[in-house]
Amino acid sequence: MTTMHAPAKSASSSGSSGRIYNFGAGPSVLPEEVIRQIQEDVWNYKGCGMGVLEISHRGKQYDAMIAEIDKDLREVGGIPANYRILFMTGGASSQNYIVPANLLPKGGTADYIITGYWGEKSAEDAQQYAKCHNAGATVHIAGTSKDKNHSYIPGDDQIRYSARPAYVHMTSNNTIYGTQWKRVPAAPAGVPLVCDASSDIFSEPIDVTKYGVIYGGAQKNLGTTGTTFVIIRDDLVAGANKDIPKMLQYGTFAKDESRPNTPPTFAIYTVGLMAKWIKKQGGLKALAAANAAKAKLIYDVLDGSAYWKPHARKDSRSLMNITFRLGTEALEEKFLSEAKAQGIDGIKGHRATGGMRVSIYNAFPKAGCEAMAQFMKDFEKRNG
Amino acid sequence: MTTMHAPAKSASSSGSSGRIYNFGAGPSVLPEEVIRQIQEDVWNYKGCGMGVLEISHRGKQYDAMIAEIDKDLREVGGIPANYRILFMTGGASSQNYIVPANLLPKGGTADYIITGYWGEKSAEDAQQYAKCHNAGATVHIAGTSKDKNHSYIPGDDQIRYSARPAYVHMTSNNTIYGTQWKRVPAAPAGVPLVCDASSDIFSEPIDVTKYGVIYGGAQKNLGTTGTTFVIIRDDLVAGANKDIPKMLQYGTFAKDESRPNTPPTFAIYTVGLMAKWIKKQGGLKALAAANAAKAKLIYDVLDGSAYWKPHARKDSRSLMNITFRLGTEALEEKFLSEAKAQGIDGIKGHRATGGMRVSIYNAFPKAGCEAMAQFMKDFEKRNG
Repeated sequence: MTTMHAPAKSASSSGSSGRIYNFGAGPSVLPEEVIRQIQEDVWNYKGCGMGVLEISHRGKQYDAMIAEIDKDLREVGGIPANYRILFMTGGASSQNYIVPANLLPKGGTADYIITGYWGEKSAEDAQQYAKCHNAGATVHIAGTSKDKNHSYIPGDDQIRYSARPAYVHMTSNNTIYGTQWKRVPAAPAGVPLVCDASSDIFSEPIDVTKYGVIYGGAQKNLGTTGTTFVIIRDDLVAGANKDIPKMLQYGTFAKDESRPNTPPTFAIYTVGLMAKWIKKQGGLKALAAANAAKAKLIYDVLDGSAYWKPHARKDSRSLMNITFRLGTEALEEKFLSEAKAQGIDGIKGHRATGGMRVSIYNAFPKAGCEAMAQFMKDFEKRNG
Repeated sequence: MTTMHAPAKSASSSGSSGRIYNFGAGPSVLPEEVIRQIQEDVWNYKGCGMGVLEISHRGKQYDAMIAEIDKDLREVGGIPANYRILFMTGGASSQNYIVPANLLPKGGTADYIITGYWGEKSAEDAQQYAKCHNAGATVHIAGTSKDKNHSYIPGDDQIRYSARPAYVHMTSNNTIYGTQWKRVPAAPAGVPLVCDASSDIFSEPIDVTKYGVIYGGAQKNLGTTGTTFVIIRDDLVAGANKDIPKMLQYGTFAKDESRPNTPPTFAIYTVGLMAKWIKKQGGLKALAAANAAKAKLIYDVLDGSAYWKPHARKDSRSLMNITFRLGTEALEEKFLSEAKAQGIDGIKGHRATGGMRVSIYNAFPKAGCEAMAQFMKDFEKRNG
C-alpha cells in the first residue's frame, strides 16, 4: 500500500489524503485500503445491488460473508476446529459478567491475574456477578502487579492459584500501562485460561490451544467498534451454565452462527476485511515482525537517553502501547501540544499513569512511528 | 433527492447506481444521500484527519457528535427533558432480559401484551429471567392476538391487566404479521408502558410521554445494525434494580452518555445521519404522510381484487410491513421468482405467515412502491 499521508509535520495543512497519524488507543486507525473497500461496499456490496449496511443477516450475501470470515480467521490465527469463533456485542466490559455467567458454577471459584485497569474491572465485575446471581461463588486474586503501578507482568512464581479454579482470567496486553505478557501463564492443569485480548489480538502468532476462551473488542487490531469476538473451546460452550438469559449464553451464539437476532453486521464485516488484510501482510508472523520493528523505533529513542522515563519494565514492554513520561509535567504539556501541532494526535496518557501513551496497533503505519521517533529526538534536542 | 435507481424491471442489468429496490425486513435500505455521506466520513470525518470509524469515543469529535445526535433526536421525536436517550447493544432481543433485570422487582409482576412473534419472545425471555434471577417475580400475559394468527391488534376490552404490574410491555409494530398499533393501550394509571418499537420508531409522530421506555434496534428506521436505542424516563432509571451487572444497568448508560466502555460508535453515528435526514424530510408528520402514501399504493392493489389475500385485519394494518398471500403456494413461488427477476428482492414472508412480506421503512423510496404495485397488477393480469 502506498501511504498517501503527508509527512507528519505538514499533516495539519493536509496532503492529498487529508489524513493525520492517529495514535489513538482505540477505536484506532484502519488500513487505508480497507477504508477504500468500505467506501465501495456501502454503496453496492459485491454487485448485489445493496450496500453492506443494508443486506439481510439471513440473506445469501451474509451467509457467504460470515463463512469466509470464519475461514479467514481460522487460517490467520491457527484456530483449531474444536474452537468456535463467536461475534457478540457489548465490548470486553460485557464479557466481565458474561464469562462468570457462563463459566462459573454455583459455589465455584474463579481466579484472576490482575495486570492493569481492565483486569481489575474484570475481577470486580465477576465478584459483583457472583454476589448477585451465583450463590456461593467467589473470585480469587491469583496475582497482581499493583504494587508497582502495573509496570510489569508477574512471573509464575508470583502467582498463587486457588485449589480448584473454574477458570483463570488474564489480560494479555495492558493499554493503559503499556505492558504485555510474553508467555502464557502456567495455570493449573486442565483449568481453562480466559484471556481478554482486546488490545493485542492477532498482533503476533498465538497458540490458541493454550486458552479456553480468548475475547475482546474488535476496534483496535481487528476492525471497528460494535462487535466482541469470542474464540471458545467447544467443551466450554457445551458445559456452560444454562440458567442465564438466552442472549448471554455462548451456546446461543455458537448454535446460530452468531445471529440469534440481528447481529452487528457491519462491525463483523470489518473484521473480515481486517482478516484479509492480515493475510495480505503475510500473516501473523510477518505482522509480528512489522509490529516489533515499529515499536523498536520508539523504544530505541526511550532507551537512548535518561531524558525519557518509560513506564513499563523492559521485559514487560507492550508492542501495542508505549507509555512514558518526561522530567516534569510542564514538559509533558509542551510535548503534547507540539506533537498535536505536527499532526500527531491521541497520545495523552491515561490519568492512571500520566505522561504519554503511543498506540500503534496492527494497522498503524510504520511511517507514523518514524515520524514519532523523529519528533521525539527533535523535541529532546530543543528541550534537553 | 434524485433517485438514481434504474426502473425495477431493468435493475438487474443495473442503471448508473447499480442498486436494486431492497424490500428487506431489516437491516434495510438507507437513503442514498446518507450512504454518500458515510463514504466521505469514513475517510475523513469533518476534516479532522481521521475517519468516523477511527475517532476516539472520548475525543472532541465524538463529544460533539453525540451531543448533536441527542439534540436532533429530541427535536425529531419530541422527546422531553425528563427522558434519557441511551444507546446500548445486543438488539431488542437483549432488552428482553434487560427490561426485567432493571424494572421487575423481586416478587413483582410484569404484564405483556402479545401481538406477534417478537412479543411472544419478549414474554418468554422475561419469564426465564424471573425464574433464574428474580425470586418470586412473575410474568402475566395481559392480552394476545394468537387466536387469529396475530392478524389483529386487540382492543382495550380484550386486555386484562394484573393487579399491580411493574410495567406493561407491548410491541408497536409486528414485522412478521404486518400489524401495527393505532392507539396507545390503556394501561393502568401510573404503570409504565414499555414499548419495543424496533420496526416503526420515528415512522410517524409519537407521544413519548405516554411511555416509560421505548426501545429498539436501529437497523430498520433509524440507521444500521449494532446499536439499540432506549428512550427512558428519568424516574425509571433512578428506580431501576441495582443488583445486576453494571453493564446491564440503564443507569450506567444514562450516567456516562452511553459510553461506559467503547460504544458502537459507527452505528450511533448512522442514527445521527438518519435524524438529520428525517428533519430534512420535514419531520415525523411529513414522514408519516409519505409512509402512508407509500403503503397505500400497495394496499390499494390488495384491496382491488379478491386475487390477493392480505393477512392483517384492515384496522390493524402496518404501514411498515405489508403481508399477503396468493391463492396457492405455487402461485406464490411464481410471484417471488418473477419479482426477483425484476430486481424486487427480500419479499418472502416469514414461515409463520407464509406468502409475501413487503417492508417499506422510512428510507424506502416511493418509486419502489410504485414499481411493486405495478408489478403486482401486471402479475395478476398474467396469472389471474
